[in-house]
Amino acid sequence: MDIRELARHLGLSIGTVSRALNDRKDVSPATRQRVVEAAAKHGYIPNQSGRTLRSGRTGTVGFMLTLEHDSAIHGDPFFMALLEGLQNGLSEHDLDLVVLLARKGEDALTFLRRHVSRGTVDGWVLSGTQHDDPRIPFLLDRNIPFIALGRTAIARDYAWIDLDFEGVMADAMTLLTKAGHRRIGLVAPPATINNSHIVVERYRDALARADIPFDPALVHHGETDESDGEATASELMAMPDRPTALLLMGETAPVGAYRALRRLGLEPGRDVAVIGLRDNPACRALSPDLTCFSLDLGDLGLALARGLVAMLPGQTEDGGPAVQALWGMTLRLGQSHKVER
Amino acid sequence: MDIRELARHLGLSIGTVSRALNDRKDVSPATRQRVVEAAAKHGYIPNQSGRTLRSGRTGTVGFMLTLEHDSAIHGDPFFMALLEGLQNGLSEHDLDLVVLLARKGEDALTFLRRHVSRGTVDGWVLSGTQHDDPRIPFLLDRNIPFIALGRTAIARDYAWIDLDFEGVMADAMTLLTKAGHRRIGLVAPPATINNSHIVVERYRDALARADIPFDPALVHHGETDESDGEATASELMAMPDRPTALLLMGETAPVGAYRALRRLGLEPGRDVAVIGLRDNPACRALSPDLTCFSLDLGDLGLALARGLVAMLPGQTEDGGPAVQALWGMTLRLGQSHKVER
Repeated sequence: MDIRELARHLGLSIGTVSRALNDRKDVSPATRQRVVEAAAKHGYIPNQSGRTLRSGRTGTVGFMLTLEHDSAIHGDPFFMALLEGLQNGLSEHDLDLVVLLARKGEDALTFLRRHVSRGTVDGWVLSGTQHDDPRIPFLLDRNIPFIALGRTAIARDYAWIDLDFEGVMADAMTLLTKAGHRRIGLVAPPATINNSHIVVERYRDALARADIPFDPALVHHGETDESDGEATASELMAMPDRPTALLLMGETAPVGAYRALRRLGLEPGRDVAVIGLRDNPACRALSPDLTCFSLDLGDLGLALARGLVAMLPGQTEDGGPAVQALWGMTLRLGQSHKVER
Repeated sequence: MDIRELARHLGLSIGTVSRALNDRKDVSPATRQRVVEAAAKHGYIPNQSGRTLRSGRTGTVGFMLTLEHDSAIHGDPFFMALLEGLQNGLSEHDLDLVVLLARKGEDALTFLRRHVSRGTVDGWVLSGTQHDDPRIPFLLDRNIPFIALGRTAIARDYAWIDLDFEGVMADAMTLLTKAGHRRIGLVAPPATINNSHIVVERYRDALARADIPFDPALVHHGETDESDGEATASELMAMPDRPTALLLMGETAPVGAYRALRRLGLEPGRDVAVIGLRDNPACRALSPDLTCFSLDLGDLGLALARGLVAMLPGQTEDGGPAVQALWGMTLRLGQSHKVER
């Protein structure tokens, strides 16, 4: 039985049957149930492949997750909370969210190209943006709707929302330089990640403003995870002229840094000032309380969803210009930065 | 230009062109590049919808994630590491992994039915299995390949791998009862989650073996996250005959429990024994060191992938009987359980 026969059998329009089978909101629960039951009874299974060929709309948005890059800067709790917000925003427009995981070692563009050619989704959320990210021109050139979580160095017009690393670095460096620190160790994300450039630039700016010479030996680019935080803190503290403060721009790096400091008999917040990136569960577990930054990931996810939805064809909203916004993070003062020089 | 013309133009078979465009491993990188470049030059975009209609194979496996249920028992770091292992296992067979997120408040079966009817994926990994989980008979009745991360109370034959909560409870309860604890507070997952039943059963068994009466007031079913750990620890410690030990079967619950204990002037591992579930980054950040359990999530993901792949049509391996296995967790002794009574 095809959808036409099913609709005739039920005395409904094909559109209503289609909407009911796709769980659209504009069908009453009673009608939906009637349609679903009849479809099951008569063995009708709507074919998504056919549907895509007809309408060109999958009703689905893809979040491209590159485990290697994304976990390099953010930890896992970051993404789960973000996905929840994103999903809430998409549900408002009856869109499903799928997370597409790039294979390990696979080129990001090859991955994206494969899914675009398959027509898996109607629009994309990209994360882990690189300084020079070929996914951006690829999607722009094909007029495929997308929003990026993060900027790039690409001078073209596209939708993005990025964490305000400028603000984070300004706040953190002000705290440390005002307390008299002149040797500040920095753990920045891998150099390919766009925000890594912003972090290092703003670090150098803040040093210049405080009249402190820049020492490249104090800057490490790494995976910024727990074990990296541990290794980097150990290395930095082994310097002859070792830092008196550590600024760790990774979600779980502070957990490793605390461990490394204690192994050297140094107490965070008493002997060495420590500032972290975000108050995730791991950082909240640290004692003394970690000074770091907070943001509402649910709201960020919602904003990404709304920015993307406005660009999808057939959405009622007026798209307007592409969203381009820095997402503020709030300084959360703990005890770990309180080392006076 | 269609695929036939493209193949003729390149002097290759349609099969080779198709495999090259789908990034299959059995095509040399040079040929793949030649095909991709020619396809781009001549404006050929392979249509996944068409491909699905022809072959009935999407080359994709779906991981169904229910944020509400899954984050209830496991935290986020659990899933990211698991997905990485799963993806590695699927890549071996040239399969892509997509994570399909059930919408908030949406019935799990409605969600699954929608994606099955769309033919989104070739097979499923289910997580957050409920005691009575309608997704299991739904997929079994339709002969759709799946593997469950977690058991259910359903007495039918299907593939599953579950964490060995029996072993975890036996180890933890032995530690505590041997140290003389008779009032042991238990934070178990929500009662609908299948493992919650196992946890409570084994808790009661262990008490009976140690000749300790069961007090239902000591058992809490909750979301087992950080704030729940905090609230539950506070409540348990407010009892007139308060527990001397806490057993917290949630990933970040110990973080909240440490906080609650300290607010009451109690030190974990000195005044109250604490045992947690897994050594995730948040638990590793706790001081004193949390006694908990560890497992290799990458290996677990790989095992799930292999168990599922063996059931997919067209895979060369001999499927054999469905995988049904408990996945062991290793006791990791810290300092937090060391309270003698």
